[in-house]
Amino acid sequence: MTLQLFELVGTDAERPFSPYCWRIRMALAHKGLDHGSIPWRFTEKEAIAPHGSERVPVLLHGEKPVADSWVIANYLEDTYPDRPSLFGGEGGRAVGKLINSWGDIAVVGGLFPLIVSDIPAHLGPVDADYFRTSREARLGRKLEDTAAERDKSVLAFRRSLEPMRQTLKSQPFLGGKAPNYADYIVFGGFQWARVVSPFKLLEESDPIHAWREKLLDAFDGLARNSPGFAV
Amino acid sequence: MTLQLFELVGTDAERPFSPYCWRIRMALAHKGLDHGSIPWRFTEKEAIAPHGSERVPVLLHGEKPVADSWVIANYLEDTYPDRPSLFGGEGGRAVGKLINSWGDIAVVGGLFPLIVSDIPAHLGPVDADYFRTSREARLGRKLEDTAAERDKSVLAFRRSLEPMRQTLKSQPFLGGKAPNYADYIVFGGFQWARVVSPFKLLEESDPIHAWREKLLDAFDGLARNSPGFAV
Repeated sequence: MTLQLFELVGTDAERPFSPYCWRIRMALAHKGLDHGSIPWRFTEKEAIAPHGSERVPVLLHGEKPVADSWVIANYLEDTYPDRPSLFGGEGGRAVGKLINSWGDIAVVGGLFPLIVSDIPAHLGPVDADYFRTSREARLGRKLEDTAAERDKSVLAFRRSLEPMRQTLKSQPFLGGKAPNYADYIVFGGFQWARVVSPFKLLEESDPIHAWREKLLDAFDGLARNSPGFAV
Repeated sequence: MTLQLFELVGTDAERPFSPYCWRIRMALAHKGLDHGSIPWRFTEKEAIAPHGSERVPVLLHGEKPVADSWVIANYLEDTYPDRPSLFGGEGGRAVGKLINSWGDIAVVGGLFPLIVSDIPAHLGPVDADYFRTSREARLGRKLEDTAAERDKSVLAFRRSLEPMRQTLKSQPFLGGKAPNYADYIVFGGFQWARVVSPFKLLEESDPIHAWREKLLDAFDGLARNSPGFAV
């Protein structure tokens, strides 16, 4: 198989959960590209070190490694220009970088404290210990202390998505009439949450909820059929 | 003259300050389109009512009125397709809507409490009274109370721009190698602030400061040469 994707998993090798890997899963489906999956766990640094990265996603195109979700998306766009575009042209690619950063900071960063306490249960003992230690250092407190506030902090998270909510009032997807990589940037975060956490993130009346449903159904239910919680 | 833009001013008719009008000023320059300017003040609702809007910008193309900055930008792109593109293709236009909403909420909305107290001094008595009353109702307190906190609240504003800062690490403009409407969306907010307020918004070491300097110089210094404070 030509394309192989290193994907973050825990004890269940069939339950990929990284938000950045999900961006690429959706991008590969958008391009109609089959790919193999190489399960990878947090502490398996040596498995991807030869490919020049300490984190996933790493895509292997034959022998060639490509690391970082934004770099991979651009690589796919340039390598398969005749397949459906991820960006809708150079202007979409250029401003896509801002959306990528907004997705990293507002969406993934905003989801992190809401779901982080649910992640260790999906990990083996070594990974769970690594995850807890590194994330509690980042948060400056116990994972459980962060979780204890989430009924309140989810309200600020929902408010932070207002630019997206406004956008979805006038078009069905961030990419316009159909989804593109802008949508996958944000959806990757929601799918990460869905896979690891039963916590309710969105009100059902929220236009972002309806948007998420459509992306769960995209590509024959690629995301919905992957193990996760019904949220 | 074919194109005429209603622009928000105060006592000085040569000092346009609306962030949304500045988006269109920059867009017209980007397209290389000459236009006339019709000074308009907050309380002159009847002057634009026949054109179907209660707010500026309103662009008159001959007899045809076009209202709302996002609608005007799209109108210019569609009406003058052979001139330099504001979006760099349909993908850029589609995701531009999210950037427009982010610009409205994070940038204009974030700047509002930092500069609002400086605006009445630029207005005649009737407009100043209207402005103070309507904005204090929106804020739920005196303009001066908001201003008293701005040395502290500007720090949160700067942090909120982190997605843009990250983007400018890898490309000179939000639009890529050259500025486009994505840049003007954000710049309109900064130019609004520059025209009405001496308050320092950005550290000089901030990449967004350097980006702003380049946009102040764009189109032969269109924005820099307009009356404002050296910030």
